[in-house]
Amino acid sequence: MTDTVNRQILLVEKPAGKLGPEHFRLSATAVPEPKDGEALLRVRYISLDAANRAWMHGATYRAAVETNTVMAGGGLAEVVSSKAAELAPGDIVFGDTGWQDYAAVPAKHLTKLPRIEPLTHLLSIYGIAGLTAYFGLLEIGKPKAGDTVVVSAAAGSVGSIVGQIAGIRGCRVIGIAGGKDKCHWLTAELGFDAAVDYKDAALFRQIKAAAPKGIDVYFDNVGGDILEACLPQMNNHGRIACCGAISQYDGAPSPHGPRGVPGLIVVKRLIMQGFIVMDFMDRRDQATADLQTWVSSGKLKVQEDVIDGLENTPRALIGLLAGENRGKRMIRV
Amino acid sequence: MTDTVNRQILLVEKPAGKLGPEHFRLSATAVPEPKDGEALLRVRYISLDAANRAWMHGATYRAAVETNTVMAGGGLAEVVSSKAAELAPGDIVFGDTGWQDYAAVPAKHLTKLPRIEPLTHLLSIYGIAGLTAYFGLLEIGKPKAGDTVVVSAAAGSVGSIVGQIAGIRGCRVIGIAGGKDKCHWLTAELGFDAAVDYKDAALFRQIKAAAPKGIDVYFDNVGGDILEACLPQMNNHGRIACCGAISQYDGAPSPHGPRGVPGLIVVKRLIMQGFIVMDFMDRRDQATADLQTWVSSGKLKVQEDVIDGLENTPRALIGLLAGENRGKRMIRV
Repeated sequence: MTDTVNRQILLVEKPAGKLGPEHFRLSATAVPEPKDGEALLRVRYISLDAANRAWMHGATYRAAVETNTVMAGGGLAEVVSSKAAELAPGDIVFGDTGWQDYAAVPAKHLTKLPRIEPLTHLLSIYGIAGLTAYFGLLEIGKPKAGDTVVVSAAAGSVGSIVGQIAGIRGCRVIGIAGGKDKCHWLTAELGFDAAVDYKDAALFRQIKAAAPKGIDVYFDNVGGDILEACLPQMNNHGRIACCGAISQYDGAPSPHGPRGVPGLIVVKRLIMQGFIVMDFMDRRDQATADLQTWVSSGKLKVQEDVIDGLENTPRALIGLLAGENRGKRMIRV
Repeated sequence: MTDTVNRQILLVEKPAGKLGPEHFRLSATAVPEPKDGEALLRVRYISLDAANRAWMHGATYRAAVETNTVMAGGGLAEVVSSKAAELAPGDIVFGDTGWQDYAAVPAKHLTKLPRIEPLTHLLSIYGIAGLTAYFGLLEIGKPKAGDTVVVSAAAGSVGSIVGQIAGIRGCRVIGIAGGKDKCHWLTAELGFDAAVDYKDAALFRQIKAAAPKGIDVYFDNVGGDILEACLPQMNNHGRIACCGAISQYDGAPSPHGPRGVPGLIVVKRLIMQGFIVMDFMDRRDQATADLQTWVSSGKLKVQEDVIDGLENTPRALIGLLAGENRGKRMIRV
């Protein structure tokens, strides 16, 4: 083992409003010893996800994060030593390592991954982001060729893949993103048919102009006003894949939901369905195979936003919540 | 033909707030002559439905109703004369006859029904109400034995049947209704496991006490506050069958939807799905057969609320919107 010090980023206070650097503190401790059944991991890349912020509100699909502990987060790591039969030094794993250099984690909570290059793809296209896009769009959104598919947070890690898969499946694809640059990138580089800048006024009319035949599938990463603008534009029997509610994470959640729920759901016979990617992991191999085919043929472009340095993790998350990133943001530890 | 005068109830003004008798007018005209392809109908029973009120807001799954025309509404009628090959005098049909004694309606817009006794059952258990309950619960709610099923407007035409079918399927059934008498009726007469009075304070806690294991299926007839109270109590992978939004019909619809949409839908992986019964009509025969089996064995009780006199149709609807009825309300013309 090279290091004897384990740098950690602690969550020292849960934010009441917006998340800021003052809510975190860099600390140092000894590199832990793995117990029976655990592996000692050297964290290589830390995944940044809007859901990290949602965990601070309380229990979601996982327990809430607690103050004065290492901030939770998904990490790609290499096994340094192992007291678990199924893992050996050099293995690459994914799991909740937290924001730190080293972690001792029970092997049963880790997913062993193939060592592919670049390793970063295991956090982006072949990781949670890519699989969320794949299963959420195809299993929940159920797009048919010719459908109009709208995706919000379209320049983000999940949205940028959702839109490209929808395009591969023969849909008309409209991305909603923040700012002209991102919108241009979606259409010029990723092959979206249209992009709508939610920072412009007249969001409803912009979407209407881009989706003149109405919306068949709305892949919702954000909730809030954008969901409210899409709902009345859904076609009968349309599907809304509820992946996240980013608009509600960084601050107090809205005391209200979108207008038209449930009235529009009834008259248009819509399906709104929530999902989390863990529910589909028994079919991960098929998804990965499809994604690899599309990536290697050049049909699917992988966009990553890699920032160096564990110490930069807080501001990388704060920036992600403000919409700084294109594609999958991660920290190289 | 006995009569030469056709009494009609016209919608003379669309209500801005609550519906009142002043929005209607009783009128009289000549009995119409059927055109080619039409049948002349003597209306026997008029169905009263909360949706009648929703039609006044604008287009739903049908065009909006217009002022100074006969108020639209489903009716059970007998064919008096026919200029359509598929219908003959004496046939019993269901269709949008409107609120009047006689109607000339294209045969293609009518559904021919078997002449069963009592005829009223063709509007209640074997009509839209029973079929809505059957398909909405079984196809959208997908209850499994042992599930906890909650239904709102539980003493109404649809809700009272939903709860009984859920009971037949081995679920724990909780009805939400207005007032102690209705709640007592649900548990004492219809076999609901529990009933919650939404007019009491502490709706959330009452539901929690009645559904200590959480809600697997919520059959939502009302939207609004009751939907908002049920959402956080849904179990993971729960289903919300969106049948109607009665709370939003009689007055201006709320500018907001329920809190927790889409956040709770995501983390609990819920399905909220709207439906209208017309989408299932190709399977009507199977549904009717099942319903007949349950009715004849005494497992399913049919509750009807029949009011005499076409002139009473407006106040019958106004009263239905105020929650007066138990079971299926209709007018005997």
